[in-house]
Order: sequence, then structure tokens, then C-alpha cells
Amino acid sequence: MNTILIGIAGGTGSGKTTLTDHLARRFGADISVVHHDNYYKRQDRPFEERCRQNYDHPDAFDTDLMIADLKKLKAGQTIHCPVYDYTIHNRTDKTVEVQPTKVVLVEGILIFQNKALRDLLDIKIFVETDADVRILRRALRDVEERGRSLESVVNQYLTTVKPMHEQFVEPTRKYADIIVLEGGRNLVALDMIMQRIANHIAEN
Amino acid sequence: MNTILIGIAGGTGSGKTTLTDHLARRFGADISVVHHDNYYKRQDRPFEERCRQNYDHPDAFDTDLMIADLKKLKAGQTIHCPVYDYTIHNRTDKTVEVQPTKVVLVEGILIFQNKALRDLLDIKIFVETDADVRILRRALRDVEERGRSLESVVNQYLTTVKPMHEQFVEPTRKYADIIVLEGGRNLVALDMIMQRIANHIAEN
Repeated sequence: MNTILIGIAGGTGSGKTTLTDHLARRFGADISVVHHDNYYKRQDRPFEERCRQNYDHPDAFDTDLMIADLKKLKAGQTIHCPVYDYTIHNRTDKTVEVQPTKVVLVEGILIFQNKALRDLLDIKIFVETDADVRILRRALRDVEERGRSLESVVNQYLTTVKPMHEQFVEPTRKYADIIVLEGGRNLVALDMIMQRIANHIAEN
Repeated sequence: MNTILIGIAGGTGSGKTTLTDHLARRFGADISVVHHDNYYKRQDRPFEERCRQNYDHPDAFDTDLMIADLKKLKAGQTIHCPVYDYTIHNRTDKTVEVQPTKVVLVEGILIFQNKALRDLLDIKIFVETDADVRILRRALRDVEERGRSLESVVNQYLTTVKPMHEQFVEPTRKYADIIVLEGGRNLVALDMIMQRIANHIAEN
């Protein structure tokens, strides 16, 4: 099997998850998805300390494990992807089986930051959306869907999300092959990416 | 015939012409190319004044004529594209016949600036390259290929090219469906665009 890895990066609220979900729905069992978020490191410390973890710093992720898993998928092997539970701020003991497929989507804010990971990706897509639009989307999601207070969202955004974005996420847009504005809402770009994937599946 | 128009915009030296040329070579008679540059307005005034023309301002172009021509191509009609001669700084009396094809590339720094033109384009690609890299490419081209002095290049760049880019070109990147970094040198993006075009030709 000739497997290609397609990286989808971008800041919080950029629309990268919407784009990833569109592609996953369109191709079903023909593609698999690996989220960097599921590779947050296991934390052996009290809940209060885990809550204060900086989730937007590269060191929060076990990227080496993800790289090893992606190499397995590329070699045609099944992986057992870790599962992270946001409610307890820690990795669970569960895993999810991911089958090797001809196309693997790799999604996350920081997947272009690690060179070894970046070099594994055949196509690198950066989803770009204005920072004000991104924080509004994130605020709506965290307040309405996750029951958080707007104050806590603002506090986390200003103290970690924004500075980490500017230090680690934004500089990696230069590694992208293409930049997609507005992510999953951009139907022309979505169509182009879908055709690229469909051609790869049909020809391999 | 189902014709799609693909716009390729970007600043001077961005690599948009390289990208356009790659696509034109790859698809030969299956696609046609229309350059906004050929629609510079005819100028009835002395040579010295024509030399001082601001070629980076939207008003320098006869965009209405280009829109009319693109609509003809889309309707399956042949057009007679004007030809601009840079050595005399004026439109010539020659025209070039452009046949209708399933895919028409529209290339120019300002093609996303005019809404009527923008709305005609089915796919909008903005080629983005750092400003320092762009001016170096432009300087090499103008000095080595066009025999201009570096001083005149620098003077034109700082007095018109750069301010016009910042006022009119850069703001139009937000209209793009995809942004391609480095233009014709970006093989992953080139491949994706080629597959999109090849699929359209094959299916129509």
C-alpha cells in the first residue's frame, strides 16, 4: 500500500478540525485520522497541577510516540492510538485502533513544529483564519459546549494560547505547501484537496 | 464547453508567472492564459510621461475590457487579446488570438482587486513570497534581463511598487481560496493544482 500523510495545522478555532471532519466523512474507511491532541503526555501529578498545564507548548505532547505510530501506519501496520480525556486532564488507559489506509490525515496546532514529524508529511496544509475570528469560535465552543466561564476562556487565551500561538504555531505556516483560508468553510479549497485524495486512492 | 477560470495573483517576484508557465506547459492546448498586464490602458501622451505611469495602480488597467474578454472565453468564443509593449510603454496595434478552452488561467498582481473580475474566477490562487525575496527576484530580472540600473529598480520599487502592493495587492490575499507559498517552486501545491485541472479537463 502506498500511504500518504496529509498534515492539517493551524491555530485554535482556525477551522482545521472542520476541514478534517469534512474529509473524514467524505472518504469514510478509505482514510484514517490521527490527532496530535490524543498524544498529550501522561501526567503523574495532582489534578490541580494538571489543570495548570500549558497545553499549547510543544513539550506537552509525546510527539515521538506519534511519529513512531505514523511510521507504522505508513508501513501498513495497525496502531493503537492513545486517548486523552480533557475532563481529567490526563491520558486514559484506553486506546483506539487505527487501521492503515492509503491516506492518513494528521491534525493538530503544532504538527509542523517538530522537524521529524514535518518531514514525514507528504502534503502540509495550514488553515489560516484571523485571530479575532479564531478566539470568538473558541469562546463559543468552550462556553456553550464545554460549560466554561467566559472569564476562564479569556484568561487561558491571553496567558498561554495566544503567546504559544505566536511563538510556536504561527511561525510554522511557512512550512505549509498550501494555506487554506477559513478551513472547512472554504469549499473551493476543500474540493481541490478532495480531488487530490480521491486521485491518490484511485491510483494506488 | 464547461470552462473554469483560475486566477493566479500575487506580488511582483512572488513566483506567480513561474506557476502559470508550469501549468501552461503541462497542459498545452488544453488551457489558455490571459495576462492582466496585456490590458494596460492605451496611453495618448508623450513617451516621457508614459515612463512615469504608475503601473501598479488598478487604474492603469483596462479591466472592463479583460472582463468582457473572459466572459467571451467562458461563453466559448475566441478573443483577440491586446498586446502591451514595455519598450514603448504603450499598447500596440497587434492582438493575440486566444481560443476558448476548458480551463483559462488569469494572471496578474491585481486580478483580485476588482470585484466583478474576482467574481468571475472559479478558483482563486494567491502566490505568497516574502517581500525581501520578491524584490531580489525582481531586481535580478530587471537588471540582468532588461538592462535596467539597480538604482532605477530601487527607486521604482520604493516609490510605486511597494506602496501599491501594500495598498492594493496584499489586501486581496484574503479573497484567495488557497495561498501557495513560493509559487512555481512549490511542487506539492503545483501537483495539487495540476490534478484539479486534469480532472476538470477529463470530466468535461
